[in-house]
Amino acid sequence: MIRVTVWNEYIHELRNPKVAEIYPNGMHQAIADGIRSDFIHVRTATLSEPEHGLTDAVLDETDVLIWWGHMAHDQVDDKIVERVRDRVLNGMGLIVLHSGHFSKLFKSLMGTTCGLRWRETDDKERLWVIDPSHPIAEGLPPFFELEMEEMYGEHFDIPAPDELVFASWFEGGELFRSGCTFRRSRGKIFYFRPGHETYPTYHNKEILRVIANGVRWAAPTPGSRPLYCENTPPLEPIKPKR
Amino acid sequence: MIRVTVWNEYIHELRNPKVAEIYPNGMHQAIADGIRSDFIHVRTATLSEPEHGLTDAVLDETDVLIWWGHMAHDQVDDKIVERVRDRVLNGMGLIVLHSGHFSKLFKSLMGTTCGLRWRETDDKERLWVIDPSHPIAEGLPPFFELEMEEMYGEHFDIPAPDELVFASWFEGGELFRSGCTFRRSRGKIFYFRPGHETYPTYHNKEILRVIANGVRWAAPTPGSRPLYCENTPPLEPIKPKR
Amino acid sequence: MIRVTVWNEYIHELRNPKVAEIYPNGMHQAIADGIRSDFIHVRTATLSEPEHGLTDAVLDETDVLIWWGHMAHDQVDDKIVERVRDRVLNGMGLIVLHSGHFSKLFKSLMGTTCGLRWRETDDKERLWVIDPSHPIAEGLPPFFELEMEEMYGEHFDIPAPDELVFASWFEGGELFRSGCTFRRSRGKIFYFRPGHETYPTYHNKEILRVIANGVRWAAPTPGSRPLYCENTPPLEPIKPKR
Amino acid sequence: MIRVTVWNEYIHELRNPKVAEIYPNGMHQAIADGIRSDFIHVRTATLSEPEHGLTDAVLDETDVLIWWGHMAHDQVDDKIVERVRDRVLNGMGLIVLHSGHFSKLFKSLMGTTCGLRWRETDDKERLWVIDPSHPIAEGLPPFFELEMEEMYGEHFDIPAPDELVFASWFEGGELFRSGCTFRRSRGKIFYFRPGHETYPTYHNKEILRVIANGVRWAAPTPGSRPLYCENTPPLEPIKPKR
Repeated sequence: MIRVTVWNEYIHELRNPKVAEIYPNGMHQAIADGIRSDFIHVRTATLSEPEHGLTDAVLDETDVLIWWGHMAHDQVDDKIVERVRDRVLNGMGLIVLHSGHFSKLFKSLMGTTCGLRWRETDDKERLWVIDPSHPIAEGLPPFFELEMEEMYGEHFDIPAPDELVFASWFEGGELFRSGCTFRRSRGKIFYFRPGHETYPTYHNKEILRVIANGVRWAAPTPGSRPLYCENTPPLEPIKPKR
Repeated sequence: MIRVTVWNEYIHELRNPKVAEIYPNGMHQAIADGIRSDFIHVRTATLSEPEHGLTDAVLDETDVLIWWGHMAHDQVDDKIVERVRDRVLNGMGLIVLHSGHFSKLFKSLMGTTCGLRWRETDDKERLWVIDPSHPIAEGLPPFFELEMEEMYGEHFDIPAPDELVFASWFEGGELFRSGCTFRRSRGKIFYFRPGHETYPTYHNKEILRVIANGVRWAAPTPGSRPLYCENTPPLEPIKPKR
Repeated sequence: MIRVTVWNEYIHELRNPKVAEIYPNGMHQAIADGIRSDFIHVRTATLSEPEHGLTDAVLDETDVLIWWGHMAHDQVDDKIVERVRDRVLNGMGLIVLHSGHFSKLFKSLMGTTCGLRWRETDDKERLWVIDPSHPIAEGLPPFFELEMEEMYGEHFDIPAPDELVFASWFEGGELFRSGCTFRRSRGKIFYFRPGHETYPTYHNKEILRVIANGVRWAAPTPGSRPLYCENTPPLEPIKPKR
Repeated sequence: MIRVTVWNEYIHELRNPKVAEIYPNGMHQAIADGIRSDFIHVRTATLSEPEHGLTDAVLDETDVLIWWGHMAHDQVDDKIVERVRDRVLNGMGLIVLHSGHFSKLFKSLMGTTCGLRWRETDDKERLWVIDPSHPIAEGLPPFFELEMEEMYGEHFDIPAPDELVFASWFEGGELFRSGCTFRRSRGKIFYFRPGHETYPTYHNKEILRVIANGVRWAAPTPGSRPLYCENTPPLEPIKPKR
């Protein structure tokens, strides 16, 4: 059983009726409902909860954290960002969705600006599988489509990903590395592009399949040793030299 | 002509007579003298100078920055770290030496803890070339040695390097990824392990050769466009969908 | 249940009493016995069997193939090499052990010479975990040792591995990238260095743990689509241009 | 001065008047004329010449080889393929263009099938720069276009490239990793997608710029040591163990 926490800033849904119509209980609930299974236990957390719902108690019971944020990146408390980041470095999996590319958390793990091109014009998005035997692509066809999405285009300012699993073609003429894996310290990180709040992306079955696959991929490796920086005696004799 | 600035915290040399004997003008001067050539112009900067010697004017004239720090990482002003980091992301090359692995600058670019094992017992270090056709290994034999050095051992908590150029064997039984490249935004970064202050490492000709090679490798690619994150109109017509 | 076939040229054991004493039923049996479990079903195959024991029927029931060869690389039939290689490219996992680095199979998958330094002088080998959260390193301590082994040293002429999981320190002064992953088409490949025939390496519990971990890692991703090269109609209208 | 040999099978131009009109002296001459400079010396070679024009004498004077082939891959003598491959492994740069993805040479260096999707329907191709500070992207805008080209689409069955420099958007709905670097032994390899024979692609100034940049990137690192696989004495004493 993998224990997942879906975190959402949960603001657009409360302010914008169009978004509320698509996600009446918030995007976090749509994602949670879409990936819950006999093997995946899901809870949710949002920005307005105490400690943004990301207390040590919650994180103690989280194997993989899913992150959606957009307009309130700056309202996320630096201390919580640091706490979550430490968990990732110590092995908690992390799935960063869509506009989460600009979250403090993701930027601090990447070390780059994470900038990109963007546009809201109802582009068709077609996601191509670049790495067909990757576990995150399991069960997917060679490509799948979203009728309308926000466009994200290159250059996407991230470190070269460890693995490129998906890339997106956009109707308006751009492309994007839309499914990227990164490993940082003991944590596995999957960035997945789709999910603008004004489209029903998190009701799409291929998208939910990718996220569920990502959860399984990002789950911690059992028995992983804590991080360290330590003074350590020689294992072999050192010859005197002077 | 590549313009290099060698930055050194320059404290050990002033406090420890053993270090002062090896580096009477500081490690920064030994490095500067060792890499200066018809193709490489070198200046130096140290912690105690105003703005740590890293003013905008100096950085405007710096193609590649070399960084040595150890006991005073915390004394480096966060604003200067941010300034230097922005320069790196916009294309300035960066060579991080030895204990610089724990500098604020390097850690913020890596996103990991950058921890490692270590020991000061006069280990012999033998550096093996792992990537013999890499420009940073140009002109080097299959391996070269330092009679005595501080030991750094795995696990070294960095993201998987883009390229692994050197690895070190230590007399006491450890090994280490001692020459690693990383590209972050438009900047090229080379981490190079050797250089503990109590040994004459920066007088060694192979070590100086590696640093000079690193300078050439890390120099900015001409004509590189500034970073951006921009809203952008479609390049192709978007079909109306509702 | 993962179905494994352990292939061994099985010549040293029959000719050299010293090897026969360590591996009375062959190295393949020692490996098979060492990794067999409720989750891993193992069979074996050897060079002298018809079609080297690697018939289509056997390969149809093989999820992961383990390969040990040394003195008889040239006696492996090119047609069988081609057959096995096609299986790997279509998703069968492959674990190449020790001197298998010079097999026709491994060289054809790498595209390089796969050369290295070597020496038989009873070196102590110490394997360091370079990637502690990799599934192949699951359950292992920071390092483990083999009292005596053949030395393999850098430069190892392979493409940069996708992941570097282990590196070896040798008593005689060398180091080596001893646990490397590669993905080729739909197949996952793990090269693991230890296993000279005159040492009891395949009776060592950490070594067997690594091989069993490797089997789980290399098992095929379910639902992986066959390879193709195909002419394909447009998904979007093409504007006439002349 | 970098010495380049442009190799072309040179058959389409002699048989198809449409191709001959675009490339009256062959694609190899268009490429040669387009990249020749004070720093790049260019000669050409074609399939019908003795030894396909790739004698040892010619290769002795070649720093970088450019390869265009399509309908006659099978007519390239295996011995010449082996000779050229050995040169690449020993440091000669290689630029493989367009349908050269299916050449014996490229496939033997990759180890995979190198298959892809394709279509000839006058698609517009837009090449996006994925790695803006890579030397091969020097001087290029964020994207550039070819009004008409053959489509190549994912999945492209290559090993994960060391670096992804360009990716192509196609009007018909596909995308492709169109500029990929690989290092194999001491050789640097750049695969660049565009260049179907029925379009004037090799008269396009951005395309020629990319190829010239590729030549500079792929040129051999000076002083690179020949490959070896050698028995080697210990560098440190080995303790007797039995």
